[in-house]
Formats: sequence, structure tokens, C-alpha cells
Amino acid sequence: MNNFMDKDFLLDTESAKHLFHDFAENMPICDYHCHLSPKEIYENEQPSDISQLWLSGDHYKWRAMRSCGVDEKYCTGDATPKEKFVKFGETLGWCIGNPLYHWAHIELQRYFGIDTPLCAKTAEDIYERANKAIAEGDFRPQSLITRSNVKVVCTTDDPIDDLEYHKLLADVDGFDCKVLPSFRPDKALNINLDGFADYIKALGESADIKIKCVDDVIKALCKRADYFDSVGCKVSDQAFDYVPYREEDKDDLDEIFEKAMKGKRPKQKDTDKYRTAVMLALGKKYAELGWAMEIHIGAMRNNNTQMFNKLGADTGFDSVGDCEIAAPLSRFLDALNKDGNLPKTILFNLNDKDNTVLATMLGNFQSSETAGKIQFGPAWWFLDTMDGMTAQMKSLGNLGVLGKFVGMETDSRSFTSYGRHEYFRRIMCRLLGRWVEDGWYANDDETLKQIVEGVCFDNAMEYFKF
Amino acid sequence: MNNFMDKDFLLDTESAKHLFHDFAENMPICDYHCHLSPKEIYENEQPSDISQLWLSGDHYKWRAMRSCGVDEKYCTGDATPKEKFVKFGETLGWCIGNPLYHWAHIELQRYFGIDTPLCAKTAEDIYERANKAIAEGDFRPQSLITRSNVKVVCTTDDPIDDLEYHKLLADVDGFDCKVLPSFRPDKALNINLDGFADYIKALGESADIKIKCVDDVIKALCKRADYFDSVGCKVSDQAFDYVPYREEDKDDLDEIFEKAMKGKRPKQKDTDKYRTAVMLALGKKYAELGWAMEIHIGAMRNNNTQMFNKLGADTGFDSVGDCEIAAPLSRFLDALNKDGNLPKTILFNLNDKDNTVLATMLGNFQSSETAGKIQFGPAWWFLDTMDGMTAQMKSLGNLGVLGKFVGMETDSRSFTSYGRHEYFRRIMCRLLGRWVEDGWYANDDETLKQIVEGVCFDNAMEYFKF
Amino acid sequence: MNNFMDKDFLLDTESAKHLFHDFAENMPICDYHCHLSPKEIYENEQPSDISQLWLSGDHYKWRAMRSCGVDEKYCTGDATPKEKFVKFGETLGWCIGNPLYHWAHIELQRYFGIDTPLCAKTAEDIYERANKAIAEGDFRPQSLITRSNVKVVCTTDDPIDDLEYHKLLADVDGFDCKVLPSFRPDKALNINLDGFADYIKALGESADIKIKCVDDVIKALCKRADYFDSVGCKVSDQAFDYVPYREEDKDDLDEIFEKAMKGKRPKQKDTDKYRTAVMLALGKKYAELGWAMEIHIGAMRNNNTQMFNKLGADTGFDSVGDCEIAAPLSRFLDALNKDGNLPKTILFNLNDKDNTVLATMLGNFQSSETAGKIQFGPAWWFLDTMDGMTAQMKSLGNLGVLGKFVGMETDSRSFTSYGRHEYFRRIMCRLLGRWVEDGWYANDDETLKQIVEGVCFDNAMEYFKF
Repeated sequence: MNNFMDKDFLLDTESAKHLFHDFAENMPICDYHCHLSPKEIYENEQPSDISQLWLSGDHYKWRAMRSCGVDEKYCTGDATPKEKFVKFGETLGWCIGNPLYHWAHIELQRYFGIDTPLCAKTAEDIYERANKAIAEGDFRPQSLITRSNVKVVCTTDDPIDDLEYHKLLADVDGFDCKVLPSFRPDKALNINLDGFADYIKALGESADIKIKCVDDVIKALCKRADYFDSVGCKVSDQAFDYVPYREEDKDDLDEIFEKAMKGKRPKQKDTDKYRTAVMLALGKKYAELGWAMEIHIGAMRNNNTQMFNKLGADTGFDSVGDCEIAAPLSRFLDALNKDGNLPKTILFNLNDKDNTVLATMLGNFQSSETAGKIQFGPAWWFLDTMDGMTAQMKSLGNLGVLGKFVGMETDSRSFTSYGRHEYFRRIMCRLLGRWVEDGWYANDDETLKQIVEGVCFDNAMEYFKF
Repeated sequence: MNNFMDKDFLLDTESAKHLFHDFAENMPICDYHCHLSPKEIYENEQPSDISQLWLSGDHYKWRAMRSCGVDEKYCTGDATPKEKFVKFGETLGWCIGNPLYHWAHIELQRYFGIDTPLCAKTAEDIYERANKAIAEGDFRPQSLITRSNVKVVCTTDDPIDDLEYHKLLADVDGFDCKVLPSFRPDKALNINLDGFADYIKALGESADIKIKCVDDVIKALCKRADYFDSVGCKVSDQAFDYVPYREEDKDDLDEIFEKAMKGKRPKQKDTDKYRTAVMLALGKKYAELGWAMEIHIGAMRNNNTQMFNKLGADTGFDSVGDCEIAAPLSRFLDALNKDGNLPKTILFNLNDKDNTVLATMLGNFQSSETAGKIQFGPAWWFLDTMDGMTAQMKSLGNLGVLGKFVGMETDSRSFTSYGRHEYFRRIMCRLLGRWVEDGWYANDDETLKQIVEGVCFDNAMEYFKF
Repeated sequence: MNNFMDKDFLLDTESAKHLFHDFAENMPICDYHCHLSPKEIYENEQPSDISQLWLSGDHYKWRAMRSCGVDEKYCTGDATPKEKFVKFGETLGWCIGNPLYHWAHIELQRYFGIDTPLCAKTAEDIYERANKAIAEGDFRPQSLITRSNVKVVCTTDDPIDDLEYHKLLADVDGFDCKVLPSFRPDKALNINLDGFADYIKALGESADIKIKCVDDVIKALCKRADYFDSVGCKVSDQAFDYVPYREEDKDDLDEIFEKAMKGKRPKQKDTDKYRTAVMLALGKKYAELGWAMEIHIGAMRNNNTQMFNKLGADTGFDSVGDCEIAAPLSRFLDALNKDGNLPKTILFNLNDKDNTVLATMLGNFQSSETAGKIQFGPAWWFLDTMDGMTAQMKSLGNLGVLGKFVGMETDSRSFTSYGRHEYFRRIMCRLLGRWVEDGWYANDDETLKQIVEGVCFDNAMEYFKF
């Protein structure tokens, strides 16, 4: 029996150990997509306790607790930090097979020096020990990022954001990680949701453009993109619950827009027409700026109306959709490509049934502009698991070119979540190591080093031009 | 090389052997969903031969035989019991990788004491030996259930059923297994199928309500649910080929209903409106009664018209559908939940492409009413295989809380099918044992015992309140 | 560590080695579906170099190169053969986990006697050595086919093809492989594509029928099918990007047809009505002729308009679709079956999310006409990988009868691609060997020999009646 999560965790062959310990383990991190707060990074406050660090904003953990029947009081409610942590510890014991279990223990080991498995019996003791580590150590965001060897962080920002903290962070002495914005125009695309008209007004103000029609929306977004670019942005990000693509009948676009501005929610068909028009313009803009366009496909958000009304978005009530995506995605990318406007693109799926669709979609639009111009994004959110990551890498290996993969990002809201990069690297080295060990790939250390270091860090740095 | 299906079948680590032999193997069985006949259990007749036991009603076996080109005569036709068994034996040899192969040998070993692999060469001999075992032993339903250590059986019953045999069984001396009804209102939902009007009339009679409108249908069903509850029912079950959800425009519901009662088949849209209205009312009723609502999603039934006309339903001509289910299922559950009417719910999928959708859907609607209020049902029917069960447990492990899983049911029509629980338990212990062996989960025997015994039996007993 | 791709490549148990080396390895090949050119086989020219053999027509290789950022010049452009090969060698090193990597090395080993792994460092040297092997050896198509022990090749042919080369090949002395045509009526079904009217005229001429209505199309196709039959055809093949099935409202079929002949592209609904009518008639004809009907489902072709305009079809810009297929496929097969017109049928899916749908669809329509009348085709094109083939065989094993599987075809355009049969056989023996080794299937050598030899060759020969 192997030791519990020791230095060779997940590394089941000598080749895997070699690839991880000699190549992957000490590579820096390029976290090209996450949800960290630049304000919190800048303000750089020491957390009071492990519950603040772990349980104040992590909807993965709340979900697990609710699944065990834990009362909301201990998730988002007014229980004490200790009570919350103990409930989480009890929960974790039942989470056999869940990445939370591994993430939590990697974090306990790396950041807190605690090797004890967390469960009902150990929760109180670990709570005290972790808090002692915090009291005696430096757990401020900038320190955690630096300790984790992170060279680039791309946050997720609204086009109307002034990026004040990104600018401030660029001048902080002794903090060398680049904290760059990403351009996420979702609110400008969501013509079908409440708050659209207000958002468009705010967008107009931030861009100093009076928005009267769809072209004005596009102009304002492009102006904001130029501003983001001036602050170092290299990445745009869009969340698509499905892939909207409807190019025909553009005549009434402005009419649709005007009605939406007056509070009339458009039909699905009209929503898609609007989104298509804006996205085609944005894609072109991204290509001009040399940005990468990330598309996160397939989340189905805020499913629980009762809890949404109580707690708002991003509180653990999202799940995975199952729309057909192949045809509209192909047509969208082709529409950009045929006019020479397709930017570097990273496609992320939240439903693993789409792995084959995405991993083969890439090959339709590759070009000599850059290696792996169209990327299959790493397994993300619900798929950010041992099985999900392995399946994504196998799909990419089978159907594309794994050696040119830009690798992992955390997609996280937590400063201790860099353990997910370690988890990813162990899983990658396990997979590659097995292939080498079994004689399926040549034992060519020079090439393997390039592949492993590339997927860990180098490919992303070259791809995004950070 | 391992011995053929010996005591350590499927248990490939020491941890797996320990978990199975020390914890799982001797746990009782709670078979919370099956298609056994309460009448047959009550009448308790000794079978004449193994063909009667194995081949008189098992469409899994007929399908396999037909796939090998075996004539219908040997499946549902007039061949002798011996001829049928020999054809099945020939077939089984070709079924490498099929769960039938494992089920058959587990049953031969456990119930008949026969260790010989069944194939063309051994079929005649095994036929004689099995029949000798029957002649010399007790193979009556109640004995088989008792020998299998089954504590609860939930049959599948129509709301108009009088549940006579369930009541009779409650008073049988020396037979301690609870045989409880489940409430399956499919016929009342199938407004689009032949026979609807007649069924509604019969429903009205059974409930002593003159049914004139949709509200009357609901009243009648609720009245029958109360009756089922009085006979010990704790479970409802619905079979959805897709997930109907259409809440808008309820004004014409009664018009749709009246036309259907006159034999006019409604359109898809109207069918869905009717189903939505009835299911929302039933969900509320189930919640009031404290029942669990099982939803079996994705069977595509009676695909072969020619054979349906000859043999009727449930004769081996069903397969797996591939509709999109995420959005309508989410909206249906949310519609119940937002008014506080969502019962305990178990979601079953027949297409494994839906594993991720279901395993993440759970988390949207969990609550502190009970641990694992929303459950991901075990791999079922076509997915009731080594790969299907493993995938379901991995999905639940990755995306939910495996330790709170209510575990296996047989979904079977056969009295020797309890071997499927053993099969499930071996597969679960293989999976969990591997995780412990590889250092992925703490080697904490106390918690592991709770998890294994929980999934085998305890969780279900607590969840359903049997 | 295992040696790189040695004689026991992929064979990880003693049982696997035994099954492969003693049963599978020396079985002949029945390649019942490919895209080889009968003209090239007949003309039988020695290739000038390995780039001509490997890189002049293989879109798999071009795709991989483009994914690494290689310029089109080195794929389909005017770079020298050596430059192209070197770029491919560089690319291959990055293709860890891709079947191309294994296919290339199997071909280098078997046809060229080269054991060195191909990568950037070795590309030039291997280019010289491979060309030396060509210069000194016999690499003509007929020799490669004969050396590969191929007994039957079914090419893919348009109904208007005169099959001249098939006839000529039947009389070539010393070349014993049967080269048979397959009937692929896609162009007659694509009423919605440019060129339909011209094609129908050409079809009329080839059949000597003046085509004025849909019935005439059917008559012409049936006449050509009779002609194909006379030249030894046993297989039809259709490529469905989705499954069209729309039986209602056939009244206006001829009107739709007439408009299409005048260049008016029909709507989706009308396209489907036309396709349904023609396919039902063709299915009946295939049944009468005793042919097998292959249906390849789910390719999404020519996604990149820019490259399609430059290079045309089949140049590496296809990917995988994700339409719902279960319901229309079931209804299509049932429509044929209920009138006794369902031919032997082989269902191929390009999206592995459909494995469960297809593997269970088979069982709906099996019959005693022949074992495995409805087949689940081997993992194909993008799924022709270690993982894809394993998943297909596991699905078939779990849900159907693997022992009656007709096995592999190359689907290839290359004369050295017979290594894919070896690859398939190793993967099959790995899978079956593991099951035997672990005691999951009886160690019954006689039955195992029949299964392995059956899937390699015998089942196909019996099924197709070659």
C-alpha cells in the first residue's frame, strides 16, 4: 500500500516520478485564467483563520457540505469559523473520490505543513494547528502567490472596470508576479437578462460613447479593449451557456437592441442574432490586438431560484448543460476565419461529452501563425478532477497535439488554490510516464523534458506572449 | 492468472479484498426498486427447471440470443426448456465482456453450487446439474429472497393496483422481508398513447372519483398515493423517455385533456404541458408524504414494431435515447423547490453521456432535510455493467458525495438476480480499495467501514425510512 | 520499463501475448471499407519516396503538422519531399498519445525495417533509410497488399462509376486479393448541395434512365446497384452527418425534386423527406441483394471555408458533430424492418458520446437471418485510437455480443495503412487477455481462439459472404 498522498502521490511508474520530480515540479506557474480579486492581492491582508481562507468564498466546499445535509448556517451563515471548519472536516471524510479531498490535503501539506488526513475526528485539532500556522506565518496573498512560484495571474474583469488595482500592483516593490486583467464582456452579450440596459449605460460612460445602436456597443467594447490592452491584457474570456450563432437577417438588430434597452426581453432567436453580431466584431478586435479568445462553454447557472434570491450568483448552485455545440461553434469560428479575423482561441467545455467535438474542432482552424493556435482548454470547474483532466489530455493526445498544449489554469477564487497546478502536473506526468513506461512513446528524455516543461509553463508563456 | 470468478473476483488489491470480505459481503440487501411480482412472491411456487427460472421472462438473455442469430423459437417460442437452455449456453460463450456472463456465473455458483463456466460444451451438463439442484433444494421465491439476505423489496405498481399481495405478504409467517409497493403513475402521464382514456376511467374507479378534468386526475392520483402510503409505500417511480417541462399557457390544459379522453392524441407540446402539471402536483404530494421520487430518464422503448405486435412490451426491443435533459430537468426540480415542494429525489440516467449532467444537478437542490436529499441513482439496466457502475460511482465521487450514496437496486424481474448486489459491491470495493491502496484516500478503517456499509445498505435504510 | 513498441507492444499480460501471437497475428485481413483507389492498385506503380507514400494524400498527417504551426507549404504545398518529411518528423515528436505516432512506427518497422523513433533529431536519417528501402524493395500497391496478407479490399465507389479497374483487377495474375466495389450513393442523397442536378443527370446517363422524378432516381440507383452486384459488390456505404428521417407528407416529394433540379436548394425538412424516401428504397434493394448497409454517422465536413476553397474536400478540415441520433435512427431501421426490408446493417459513430446509443440500437433489430445481423462498426476515423477502439469494444461487449463482431477496417487512403489492423488486434487481445488474466472470462482456449480469429477475419468473411 502506498503512503497517503506522499511525495509520489499519483506517480505510479518510475517514468512518472522522473518526469514530475525532475521536470515538472519546479516549473513556475502561469495562471492565465482565474477569479482572484486584484484588490485583495493589492491590499494583501493576512487572513484571520483557515475558515476565512477556505470557507468564506469557496462554493465547491459549500456544495459538498450541503450534499451531506449540513445546514446553510455552516456554509454561508453565521456559525463561528470553528464550527464551519469542523462541519467541513466531517464532510470531507465522505468525499472519497472528490478532488476537494485532494486539493484540501495538498493545501494542508504545502501551506500549513499538516500531513494528517482531515475528517470528523481530526477537524478540531487541524483547525487549531492551521490557525497556529497562520498566526506564526505569512499567508498574505502576495506571499502565497510568490511562494507558489506564480509568474503571471490573469484575473477576470468587466470591460467597464477601471483596472486601478492592476495598475497599482504593477508598481509594488518585491512582488514580481504580473497580475494582468482579462476582458470578459458577458454582461454586454446578455441582452436577454435583467440589468442589460443599465449595464449598457455604464459601458457607454466608461467608454465615453453615447450608445444608441449595436455598432455603438461594439465601438464602446473595442475602446475598452484598447484600454485593457494598454494595461497589459492579453486574454479575453467569454462564458457561453450554449454557443449562439445566427448570422442571417441582421436588418432588425438595432430594433432588437432598442427594445431591450427599453426593458423588453428579446426572444432566443433575437438574442442569438445580437450575440453573434457582437462576438464577430469582438473576435476581429481580439485578433487585431493579438489576444487569445477563451470560450467557456456549457455552464448552466443559478438553477436554484430560492437560493439565488437569498445568496446571489456563484454560491454553488450551478451545474452542467448538454446543448449541441458542434455546428454553431464551427460556423462561428469559420465566420471569423474566412475573413482572416480569427484570433488565437481556447475552447473549454464543461460537459465531458463534448471532449471529442472540441478536440477535433481545433484541427479545423489551425494555422502557421502560432503552434496550437486553436487550443483545447484544460478540464475546468466540474471537470477539474483526476478523471476529467486525464480525459481531456487523452482526447487532446488522441485527436490533436498534446505537446503544444498551453496547460493548466486554476479558475479559482482562492489564494491557496495553486495546489491545483501541482495536481494537474502529477496527473500529466502519471499519464505521460505510463506511456513511456509501457513502450508506447520513445524514452527520449530531451523531447519529454520539452513536452513536460512546455505544458507546465513554457507553452503558455509563448502562446500568450506574456 | 487469477482463478475464474473465485471468491476474490474483481478484488484486485488487498484493500479491496478487505473492504468486501470484512464489510460489504455480509451486509443485508435493501432492494428499493425492482420489477418482481408480489403475486409470485406470495404464491411462492417452486420452479420446474432452470429454464423457467432464467429464460421464461428475462429479456436481457433473449436479446443476447437474438444477437447471436438464435431463432425466436428458442427465446419466447415453443422450444423445450432444455433446447432453450442449450441455446443460451452457446450464446453465453460469445458474450465476453457482458454482465450477463458474470450474472449467470454468480447465480450458478451461489444458488446452484455450480462452478463450471457455461458455454456450448457445458450447457447440457449444467442444465442437468442445475435441475438436480432445483429438484433437491428450495428455490421458491421467499426462500431465494431470504437466502439472499434481503430486508426490503420495493416492487413497481400501478396507482390503480389494489396491493392485495403486498398486504397478504405482510402477514406471512417466517418471511421477514418487507415487500412494499412503489407508485408508478406512467400510464396517467402518457396522454399521448393509446389506452389513455380507458386508463383514466379505471383510475377514477379505483379512486372513487369521477374524472372530468386535470385536477380530477391529480386528485385521484393523490388519493391513490395516500392508499399506497397506508400499505407502506415510500417510493414513487416515473419513467421519462425525455424530461417534459413546459409550464407556460396552462389555460387550455383541460381542453387538451378532454380531447385526449375522446381519443385525440395531443401534440408533443400539449403532452408536455399536461405532464408538467401532473408531475408538479405529484412531486408536491410525494414531498408531503415523505416519499422519494425516482426518475428514470432516457429509455427508448418498443423500437421494433414487428416484434412489439407479436410479443408486446418489455421483451428486449428497447434501447437508449439521447435527448438533451439538463435544462428541462433543472427547471422541473426548481419549480418544485422554489415553492418548498421538492421531495427527496433520485435521478437515474440510461445514457452514460448524461452522467456529468446528473451528478452535478444534485448539488443544485441539496438541503439539510436529509443527507444526500437529491441522489444520483446507480447505473441501471443497460448501464448495469462493470464499466457503467464504475463510471457512475466515479462521477458521483468526482462531482458529489459518494459516501452518502443510497447504492444499488436490481431493477430486475428475476428471483435469482440478487447476485447483482454482490456484483455491485465487488465493483465498489474494487474502486474504493484501489483509492486507498494508492494513497489517494486515508487508510482510515473506521470511516471506510461506515462508507462501505452505508452504500451497501445503511444509507438506503436511513434515506427511505424503511 | 518496456522496450519501445517491440513485438509485445500493448500486450500487457501473458494472456494477451498468447491471444495475439498464437491466434491474431497471422490471420489474413478482410478490409471491408477503405478509400483506396482501384486505379492505383491496378496501375501498381512503385512510389518515388516515403513522402509520396506518406504525405501526398494523408490528411491526418497534415492536420497534425498544421496543429504544430507548420506552414501549408510543407503539407499540401510545393516544399520538397525531404522538407515535408522532416517537418512531419518534427511534428511527430509532439504527438505523444496520438495514433499517428503508433501507426507511423508500425509502418516504419513492418514495411521499412526501421526501429528508430521518428522525431526532429532522426527525421533526416530516417528519410534516407526509408527511401533506400523503397529503392531496393518492392513498394508497389499490389505487393504491399499481398505482403499485408489482405484477402479482400472493398473500395468506396460512386453509383455512376464504371468499375473498370475492379474488373481489370479480377484478372491480374498473381494478385489474389479480391478488390470489390462498395456502393456509396451520397451524391444522390445530397439534394441540398451544389451540383445535385448535374449529378442526377450523370446518374441517369450511367443507368440509361431519363430521370424526371424521385421514383426515377430510385430506379436508376437500383439499376446501378444491380450492376455493382454483378461486379462482386457486397457492401453499400452511406455517410450521414446526422440521421435524416421524416416519413410524413410524401405528396410533394416530386415537387421538391423538380425544384432542386432547377437549382432551388430545399429546406432541411424537405431534404430529409427526400433522403428518407430514397434511403427506404435503397435499404430494401440492399436487403434483396443480400448486401450489408454501412451507415457512417456524425462527421461534420469542410468546416474551414477558406481552406475548402483552396484545397477542396478531404484535406483535413473535418471534425465531429453532436446531433441527437437515437430517435431518427430507430425509426429509420424500424420502417425498413416492419416491412421485412431491413438489410444487414453496420452502424458507425464518429462521436463516442453515441457509443451507448448504437451498441443498444443493435439489439432492437437482430434476427436469425445471420449472427450479428446489426453490427456496431469499429471505432473509425477520429475514434480509430487506442481509447476509441477500446471504448467501442467495451460498449459492444457490455451491451451486445463481442464474439460476433465483424471487426476492423482501415477506412484509409494509404497502402501502408494495414498496420491499423495490427494495432486493432493488439488492442483487442490486450482487452480480452486482461479479462481472461483477471478471471473475468473462462480460460477456455478453444472458445477464445474462435472469438479472436472471428473478430480478426472469420466473422467478416461469413457476414459479408465474400
